[in-house]
Amino acid sequence: METATKPERREAICGAVFELLGEVGYDRMSMDAVAARARASKATIYRSWENKPELVMEALTQRFGGTPEAPDTGSLRGDLLSLLTAACTVANGDDGAIVTGLLTAASRNAELARTLHRVLFEMKNAVYETMIARAVERGEVPPTADPTLLHELIHAMMLTRRLWGSELDEEYVTRVVDRILLPVLRQDA
Amino acid sequence: METATKPERREAICGAVFELLGEVGYDRMSMDAVAARARASKATIYRSWENKPELVMEALTQRFGGTPEAPDTGSLRGDLLSLLTAACTVANGDDGAIVTGLLTAASRNAELARTLHRVLFEMKNAVYETMIARAVERGEVPPTADPTLLHELIHAMMLTRRLWGSELDEEYVTRVVDRILLPVLRQDA
Repeated sequence: METATKPERREAICGAVFELLGEVGYDRMSMDAVAARARASKATIYRSWENKPELVMEALTQRFGGTPEAPDTGSLRGDLLSLLTAACTVANGDDGAIVTGLLTAASRNAELARTLHRVLFEMKNAVYETMIARAVERGEVPPTADPTLLHELIHAMMLTRRLWGSELDEEYVTRVVDRILLPVLRQDA
Repeated sequence: METATKPERREAICGAVFELLGEVGYDRMSMDAVAARARASKATIYRSWENKPELVMEALTQRFGGTPEAPDTGSLRGDLLSLLTAACTVANGDDGAIVTGLLTAASRNAELARTLHRVLFEMKNAVYETMIARAVERGEVPPTADPTLLHELIHAMMLTRRLWGSELDEEYVTRVVDRILLPVLRQDA
């Protein structure tokens, strides 16, 4: 009888996926290499994940998945600064390089693109909804303020700057919040 | 005595560069393959361009370089719509795919990144300066409206959507102009 791969074993295998993504990138990472790195049998790997996008999806969900808590500093500006500062820390680190690598692979792989978009973007929508709902309640922005638009903007500004290799620092964060995000959110519909 | 490669010959060689970028991508394109495709001798290629980034730089400059005319429709909104619609046409076409490919290669190649940034971004700054100067003169935006910020925003929104493989259509253009660009430009400093 087949037994399901245990959670802690799956976690270790996903850890191996992240190591290999950092070392060789998505295109050159094979399922067999993951098995070897995680000291798992190929049978275990192929029983649990049908293909590479599925395996990478689980590894990504484990690392970045779930919906993080929305910051709650008492003001929209404070929340935005806190959110973007946290995002910078991730983007500037090893994980940021791995995500950039995955994104470039995704431009030639529609399935990977859908996976990435789900884990990195759609699963975070709730954070923006919570932040904007609180700001509307406090009367800081009109009820027409659009959390999806905010999410798209933040995502685009961070990703593009990261892609060009520029530093994501405090000065950049403050400029994006004060000159772009707040004016966009405060507009009347 | 060495003779310089003639302009029409350089143009043909740059055309071959673009063909190969579309077919095999930056990483797998060799100077020798360019020579073969353009029916040029390797000596000609290496005499004119020291290395691959230089050759790609010239090909890019030929295709996208120079400063395009700023649109002049009589209103800032009209200018923005016209500019973004033209950018969509390029982004949705073959050249858009080539640029996305180059950008992904640039994330692992600092020299290529600098080249791309110069040709695709810095050389276009004047367009945004002209557009904003006219809008300030017409009293549509305050004199503090920042052309660089506008440029960064447009660039980020178009690039990110293209990277995720979403369509750049009229609806998207109108939303970006009306909900993001105009509110950002109309803010008081």
